[in-house]
Amino acid sequence: MNTFGNNFRVTTFGESHGAAVGCVIDGCPARLPLALADIQPLLDRRRPGTSPLVSARNEEDKVEILSGVFEKMTTGMPIALLVKNQDMHGHDYEAIKEKFRPGHADFTFQAKYGIRDYRGGGRSSGRETVGRVAAGAVALKYLSTKGIAVQGRIIAVHGVTSPQKIDGEIVAARAAGDSVGGIVEIRATGCPAGLGDPVFGKLDAGIAAAMMGIGAVKGVEIGDGFAVAERFGSENNDQMTPVGFASNHAGGILGGISTGQDIVVRIAVKPTPSIAKVQKTRDIHGKETEIRVGGRHDPCIVPRILPVAEAMLALVLIDAALEQEKYR
Amino acid sequence: MNTFGNNFRVTTFGESHGAAVGCVIDGCPARLPLALADIQPLLDRRRPGTSPLVSARNEEDKVEILSGVFEKMTTGMPIALLVKNQDMHGHDYEAIKEKFRPGHADFTFQAKYGIRDYRGGGRSSGRETVGRVAAGAVALKYLSTKGIAVQGRIIAVHGVTSPQKIDGEIVAARAAGDSVGGIVEIRATGCPAGLGDPVFGKLDAGIAAAMMGIGAVKGVEIGDGFAVAERFGSENNDQMTPVGFASNHAGGILGGISTGQDIVVRIAVKPTPSIAKVQKTRDIHGKETEIRVGGRHDPCIVPRILPVAEAMLALVLIDAALEQEKYR
Amino acid sequence: MNTFGNNFRVTTFGESHGAAVGCVIDGCPARLPLALADIQPLLDRRRPGTSPLVSARNEEDKVEILSGVFEKMTTGMPIALLVKNQDMHGHDYEAIKEKFRPGHADFTFQAKYGIRDYRGGGRSSGRETVGRVAAGAVALKYLSTKGIAVQGRIIAVHGVTSPQKIDGEIVAARAAGDSVGGIVEIRATGCPAGLGDPVFGKLDAGIAAAMMGIGAVKGVEIGDGFAVAERFGSENNDQMTPVGFASNHAGGILGGISTGQDIVVRIAVKPTPSIAKVQKTRDIHGKETEIRVGGRHDPCIVPRILPVAEAMLALVLIDAALEQEKYR
Amino acid sequence: MNTFGNNFRVTTFGESHGAAVGCVIDGCPARLPLALADIQPLLDRRRPGTSPLVSARNEEDKVEILSGVFEKMTTGMPIALLVKNQDMHGHDYEAIKEKFRPGHADFTFQAKYGIRDYRGGGRSSGRETVGRVAAGAVALKYLSTKGIAVQGRIIAVHGVTSPQKIDGEIVAARAAGDSVGGIVEIRATGCPAGLGDPVFGKLDAGIAAAMMGIGAVKGVEIGDGFAVAERFGSENNDQMTPVGFASNHAGGILGGISTGQDIVVRIAVKPTPSIAKVQKTRDIHGKETEIRVGGRHDPCIVPRILPVAEAMLALVLIDAALEQEKYR
Repeated sequence: MNTFGNNFRVTTFGESHGAAVGCVIDGCPARLPLALADIQPLLDRRRPGTSPLVSARNEEDKVEILSGVFEKMTTGMPIALLVKNQDMHGHDYEAIKEKFRPGHADFTFQAKYGIRDYRGGGRSSGRETVGRVAAGAVALKYLSTKGIAVQGRIIAVHGVTSPQKIDGEIVAARAAGDSVGGIVEIRATGCPAGLGDPVFGKLDAGIAAAMMGIGAVKGVEIGDGFAVAERFGSENNDQMTPVGFASNHAGGILGGISTGQDIVVRIAVKPTPSIAKVQKTRDIHGKETEIRVGGRHDPCIVPRILPVAEAMLALVLIDAALEQEKYR
Repeated sequence: MNTFGNNFRVTTFGESHGAAVGCVIDGCPARLPLALADIQPLLDRRRPGTSPLVSARNEEDKVEILSGVFEKMTTGMPIALLVKNQDMHGHDYEAIKEKFRPGHADFTFQAKYGIRDYRGGGRSSGRETVGRVAAGAVALKYLSTKGIAVQGRIIAVHGVTSPQKIDGEIVAARAAGDSVGGIVEIRATGCPAGLGDPVFGKLDAGIAAAMMGIGAVKGVEIGDGFAVAERFGSENNDQMTPVGFASNHAGGILGGISTGQDIVVRIAVKPTPSIAKVQKTRDIHGKETEIRVGGRHDPCIVPRILPVAEAMLALVLIDAALEQEKYR
Repeated sequence: MNTFGNNFRVTTFGESHGAAVGCVIDGCPARLPLALADIQPLLDRRRPGTSPLVSARNEEDKVEILSGVFEKMTTGMPIALLVKNQDMHGHDYEAIKEKFRPGHADFTFQAKYGIRDYRGGGRSSGRETVGRVAAGAVALKYLSTKGIAVQGRIIAVHGVTSPQKIDGEIVAARAAGDSVGGIVEIRATGCPAGLGDPVFGKLDAGIAAAMMGIGAVKGVEIGDGFAVAERFGSENNDQMTPVGFASNHAGGILGGISTGQDIVVRIAVKPTPSIAKVQKTRDIHGKETEIRVGGRHDPCIVPRILPVAEAMLALVLIDAALEQEKYR
Repeated sequence: MNTFGNNFRVTTFGESHGAAVGCVIDGCPARLPLALADIQPLLDRRRPGTSPLVSARNEEDKVEILSGVFEKMTTGMPIALLVKNQDMHGHDYEAIKEKFRPGHADFTFQAKYGIRDYRGGGRSSGRETVGRVAAGAVALKYLSTKGIAVQGRIIAVHGVTSPQKIDGEIVAARAAGDSVGGIVEIRATGCPAGLGDPVFGKLDAGIAAAMMGIGAVKGVEIGDGFAVAERFGSENNDQMTPVGFASNHAGGILGGISTGQDIVVRIAVKPTPSIAKVQKTRDIHGKETEIRVGGRHDPCIVPRILPVAEAMLALVLIDAALEQEKYR
């Protein structure tokens, strides 16, 4: 369950304050030119410590390629990518070792496994996404050879859509010891028609799983999404022209299969659950208590989720693209 | 890609106007009491021809159990469920054989496979969901032995939320040769904490894939969904009490794992693409043309999607419940 | 676990004395011409009741195509194949209902599931292979379009290798109320180099699983098999020539990947466990008892295993061939 | 295809002369005590450079646990295990860079991928098994908590069965610039009845795939294996007693499911293809040539395959044991 994909299979590993995070990619086609320079820039985009809007944790996030690349080309063998953790403050977490942080996975991990690595959220930390972004970078490199590109953008933060005002919302939330959510749109261009499968393997089903599988995501829309619920069919259908479609309400997918138009996805991102305000909770012994979550947290995860969401969409698309190769 | 689930694996088959539709369930635990009476009522709920609000196609949808049940108990062997098609009007479809219906999968199937069964949409027809509902009935039977229940309800149709007015919206749309969309909520009660996996196999990721894998669904929300994007963390976090949670904004899932609260899912359902109004399209030779989709169509798929969405949520939950058994 | 294959996925279902046996094939490429005449002859080869050497059970084994074929071509949708059972003698089995037959799966099914369909072995009956052979027929049809053929032959029965004497061994065993085993070789011709994967997905690993997954098979060899254990490397290596190889000790597979030579597989088939002689056993209550297995049994399963082994090799090859398409 | 298992999933990575080899284990139950001392001794058993009978390559094979273990217990999260390569002689391989070594995967890798890491066989090197043995060690630790143990032994080398004479055969082969094959038996004790699945997921099918998936293995037998082909059913059936079985010809598996007896597996190991003798081959341009494979090779892989085969059997058993948990 730490593996994503059927053809381009990515297995991630690592905890927030363990020795390292990373991934193994299995099924990457051979003879794809691949270098560190294809991967590092995307990791730099999701890296903490780069602005006052994000966590101050200081990680270089330097990636190493351990296998699967020979003479600057992929060989078809598994590609292991490793990022060592550096700025680990394991001792910071003693205070919350026995308390469940509201909005976090502390309680559910304890309920499921009977044990949890409480250092910085362990595996449930956003740090797990390092492996996703690294793998996504490889996928994006492959997709670029097919003319497919993926680009995310922030639609809104805390209900504010003007880029000029978004930073202000985040700064204000931080100042208040609070956090804010937002909406991100991810768009893929250059996809051919024919990707995806008709029933359970619908392309949008895969995208929905990929996006909802990112921590903090609580909603996913394809194309016009929830707005379609208020429409007539005659408004919502994308009529066809001799060369394509007259509109793209469907977001580039019909019957689970890509139409050749842009694929359009929007996700709802919840406010970071780590806040400095006092909250009611209980401890692992069932006793009522209070908590203030200190530490180096993002007051809004929206900016840093962008490269993760792009990576996930890339992973869905490469998987579908390779699947489609089977049936050409 | 016609198989859903890792532990309770459902493979569906069949086309709208082929000989039969159905499914094979692999991985159903042995010694579950199971009879036709556990399955038929759910099929009857999704059956066409039962009211003026739905398609007039006349199908009895009588299910047969071909295997996997012995002396009224499951044996652990694959359960094959078969529903023969009866009211097939293959000849009705000659008129649209060469035209792509807007909003349907006609174009994408042709692009992907280079062939399509154009009779009533073939495999992309809603008739494919017979197999899902039959399998979901078996899952629901199992879940009921664990105290878990699943129930859907209509939230809105065409923006109207009052039950009294919803029928009117549908009737009006039909009268206008048009169709309308809506929103459905599905809720699971009785789920223990601990179902689901932390990373790619998050319970909500599985639910999102299951729901978006239903034809016509364009958006999925868990808990408060897109509303969280406008909140502060202090508003959105579900604070804990000694016995549970003070609220359920999260919809019963934290970090991909069930909390023990109700699981709450909402889906956006698009208006049926089959409408009697004239639409612009093209034919399979690339020539511009027009189309009016005649036949026996649902003016609103929302009422009939309810048992399908319940079935899909049941399939996700049984899969997670069986997975969890491995690690007790 | 009733599904075989990753790309061409076959799910079989059905019990010896249930309503029907069959399979669903998912992932068959679209636009493959397919008719009943492609499938029925292979089912006829494995059919009982055709000679004094095999079981007298009288089954027509008429196959129906329920889905996935339209206008005599596959559509890429799941192909459901059904064979109704006819000559069911459920009442014959009352005598052994509570006794474990030695060499059969009665005891292990009971231990695993706590229930078993005791009628003719239920799911563990050789009748389960109807679905495999039907699916294999579709695979063979596809493979034939690529120039790949699969052919099995009997190497030995009860240690006797002369075809003239093999029938005599079987007749003698039957007369003695006993049964005999043997060895079968299956060979694939026309395979291109490059099928299979280097590590866990080796082509020979897949073949080994496929063959050992046939009831009664207790050993699998590729190429020279166990004979290699007594050789020097200089004897066993297949030296290369400008156009191929000077020998084929490897059986057409090196490092898990096909070489382009014939693929050669041999399997050891145990004597049918159903024998008329008195054997010691116990009943389901743990009490010591004796058993004589009456009924219509094959005194030697070797002739009827041939089409099953061919089918299984075909399923492995089509899966590898489709996988290879992804990475052309 | 570099992942093994459905429940306890092991993904291996790494090449003979790359930066590192290792694995990621996904699905290991939480709260298993685990330390380096559980893994290192098994790696030491397969390590080269330890005796005149094996390769002189000097690798410490020190394993690091990168994730998934917290306070000396598994957490249920992926366990990444890493072994850095040290004694890499990449430059030694220039001479064979353009020649296909007979009996090796050089030709088939080139045919499949159009590229190969020719340094020491790259991914097809036996060095890939480091990840398997490390993962197997974790599996064995878990199995030991259930009372299950796995033990391999050498049955024969080059036809010689006396332990005293086996070393002599290997030394003589090395002196002659040649290599020899052999037979290994692996036995699991303490397995409960009920592991494995009836059809394609038979326990022996899984074992066959696991064993044939080890490089150099050309045959697999369960229980009496090929010997059963010469028997009567009355000789081969294991009659039952009130407490068990009177014999174990079946090797502990009936109908694909464990009987509770010892599981007995034998494998045929081919002579190492790397030999100092001159062999005919061709180069990557298709030109006829000759080759002498120099370097640090094992004259007989049989002793070093033992821990690998044990690891693979352990991986099959843990997978089946966890599967069985689902259906208790």
